[in-house]
Amino acid sequence: MGEVKHLCLVKFKEGVVVDDVVDDMTELVSEMDMVKSFEWGQDVLNQEMLTQGFTHVFSLAFASADDLTSYMSHERHAAFAGTFMAALEKVLVIDFPVVIAKPPPPLPPA
Amino acid sequence: MGEVKHLCLVKFKEGVVVDDVVDDMTELVSEMDMVKSFEWGQDVLNQEMLTQGFTHVFSLAFASADDLTSYMSHERHAAFAGTFMAALEKVLVIDFPVVIAKPPPPLPPA
Repeated sequence: MGEVKHLCLVKFKEGVVVDDVVDDMTELVSEMDMVKSFEWGQDVLNQEMLTQGFTHVFSLAFASADDLTSYMSHERHAAFAGTFMAALEKVLVIDFPVVIAKPPPPLPPA
Repeated sequence: MGEVKHLCLVKFKEGVVVDDVVDDMTELVSEMDMVKSFEWGQDVLNQEMLTQGFTHVFSLAFASADDLTSYMSHERHAAFAGTFMAALEKVLVIDFPVVIAKPPPPLPPA
């Protein structure tokens, strides 16, 4: 069993300071060892028909489904999730085992 | 400017053989050098309230926005996209420059 991703697409409520939310999430995730990696981004398409109104993507990677469960059930995640959800107009969550169909090229030697 | 991701969430129409679609996409992407990497997965939450009905995630990474544009405008992508879209009940697309907030741990030396 390989990597599992917890993918979260959101649209923030008007007036939410997204940078602050991202800072809080980055701090939380950096202190939670079971989170293998965390990346995020803001949509640049701006095409409502394609994005369905979602504007930001947050993607957390875990080494296993157990690590994801351990993160989701952690009290620090629960505390953050309450504040996070309150800042959202809409949210979509998908958890999936990652199938790497084309691996990235190897990094050049340091 | 770093990596850009093209994220596609879908729900397939009933009767679609998902493995065949994935095989076709994998073949296409493996032959398109501007696609840096490609991963996909199937949702395991099965919670309509959270997934909004989307069941599969396809994530393509590009080294730059130019590479993404070059892929999207390529005739081979256009040909595939037509068949792909016809297999979908719903689709959501987000393109975003990737912000790596917590990098994955380095791989152990080979």
